[in-house]
Amino acid sequence: MEGQFDDGRRIERTLDVAVSFAEAPGAPPRLAEAIRYAVFPGGHRIRPRLCLAVARACGDDDPAASDAAAAAIELLHCASLVHDDLPCFDDAAERRRKPSVHVAYGVPVALLTGDALIVLAFETLARGAARSPARLAALVGLVARAVGSPAGIVAGQAWESEPQVGLSVYQQAKTGALFAAATVTGAAAAGSEPMGWRLLGEYLGEAYQVADDLRDVACRQEEVGKPVGRDVTLGRPNAAALLGMDGALRRLSDLAHEAMEVIPDCPGIEALRAEILAQTRLFLPARLAQSLVA
Amino acid sequence: MEGQFDDGRRIERTLDVAVSFAEAPGAPPRLAEAIRYAVFPGGHRIRPRLCLAVARACGDDDPAASDAAAAAIELLHCASLVHDDLPCFDDAAERRRKPSVHVAYGVPVALLTGDALIVLAFETLARGAARSPARLAALVGLVARAVGSPAGIVAGQAWESEPQVGLSVYQQAKTGALFAAATVTGAAAAGSEPMGWRLLGEYLGEAYQVADDLRDVACRQEEVGKPVGRDVTLGRPNAAALLGMDGALRRLSDLAHEAMEVIPDCPGIEALRAEILAQTRLFLPARLAQSLVA
Repeated sequence: MEGQFDDGRRIERTLDVAVSFAEAPGAPPRLAEAIRYAVFPGGHRIRPRLCLAVARACGDDDPAASDAAAAAIELLHCASLVHDDLPCFDDAAERRRKPSVHVAYGVPVALLTGDALIVLAFETLARGAARSPARLAALVGLVARAVGSPAGIVAGQAWESEPQVGLSVYQQAKTGALFAAATVTGAAAAGSEPMGWRLLGEYLGEAYQVADDLRDVACRQEEVGKPVGRDVTLGRPNAAALLGMDGALRRLSDLAHEAMEVIPDCPGIEALRAEILAQTRLFLPARLAQSLVA
Repeated sequence: MEGQFDDGRRIERTLDVAVSFAEAPGAPPRLAEAIRYAVFPGGHRIRPRLCLAVARACGDDDPAASDAAAAAIELLHCASLVHDDLPCFDDAAERRRKPSVHVAYGVPVALLTGDALIVLAFETLARGAARSPARLAALVGLVARAVGSPAGIVAGQAWESEPQVGLSVYQQAKTGALFAAATVTGAAAAGSEPMGWRLLGEYLGEAYQVADDLRDVACRQEEVGKPVGRDVTLGRPNAAALLGMDGALRRLSDLAHEAMEVIPDCPGIEALRAEILAQTRLFLPARLAQSLVA
């Protein structure tokens, strides 16, 4: 059985196979190129790593299904980045230290790249969960709810077009939903009851968003690889702007500690806790990550 | 058992239930409103009617599954209209005799409406085919291939961003793919082998596209409810512009006749033939539709 150190390889391999289907003969060449450009090279792949870690803690008895769930979630994350970067939203010129998709390929191809990635996510689920048809229905439903309306990442982005929005509702939809999808689909792909895993994903997602807000306000562009201070410029809710830096750090600490408390009992709980700690170190301030071990 | 005269009601009811899920409490109000605006009132609902007609010809032993397939295909058609109308593509101010979604709700909400409709289509499949998990995998795969890359409607739209494209490849992806999805998912939802039904959908889709091209060149705006002559303005392949009006009419006639020839043998073949004729009358020139009866 593969362990967490193989997860990166599993994720890249599954994403590569998925993207290869979209690049098959007959594809419009620029669209096919833009799809690969949007997915590779990736960031930390935090969401699919979380999905695989939960699947492993639940026994991971159908690795093709958990691979598919992890890849679907990352493809949807990539789709949201491509669309969010468009001029009508963030108008971001860079993403992951290279030109954003619409800068490299133009707005029409970028818009279609996002659309194609959404579709590819569901296609990947259908292929990967073919041996577990009963699990497929759960996976498609869980992933769809994490992305669409009323409470998925598309709804989260749509809150930016509303005159009023609460910070918590916005962050839960914009970021928490896909983290929650990572934990619940990890469990569902392994045949476990998924709903007990939702809170873990929601807490981690909100923690990630608060950490991102802190970076948005505090860091220099070189350190995060994308334009900073944009939330304030764009009038978006930002935890650090609303709560102050100290308040946001306290919120982050609370969320990270709560996440560790709500991990459901499962065969691999100790290993999972360690993996989540290792992953949260990638986005938590060092001092805060250290405090979680205590 | 319900017949073809109930299909309209079945389709509207299933679409209404699907859209209701996206409007559930917590949804961003403008996004929820725009999603309903994009789906209702509809056009002729030709694709979902075709899907249900094929399902009935194959026995329609799980109406919830065929309803879901029909609704999913219509939701994806609506998604493609919303995105295609955006300023970066057709920049169409009207659709179905009312302001297009981005004119009514702005470009950001329109883009997210298309995204949410794509997701809602797959969510609708997962809910509707829950009792037939083995059919769900086939349905998700067939629908995804009709929409994504390399050969679905998103790829069809992307061909407009390529320096060169053949008319047939373009029309097959842009229109044929979703018509083919209507026939193959109708069969799959009823538990029949789907692939024998692909050609029927492809011929009907190409016929519909050629008829649309003829209208684009020939009709006045009042008659079709959207700006006409746009293909030429936008430099898009158009059968009437490429083949001439007479050539396009001959092509249309050939396609319609070929479609009637390739209907697979099935219990309800005579009724299906009659239904397809009734439907094609909605988009074929009257004289040509008449000739198909012979």
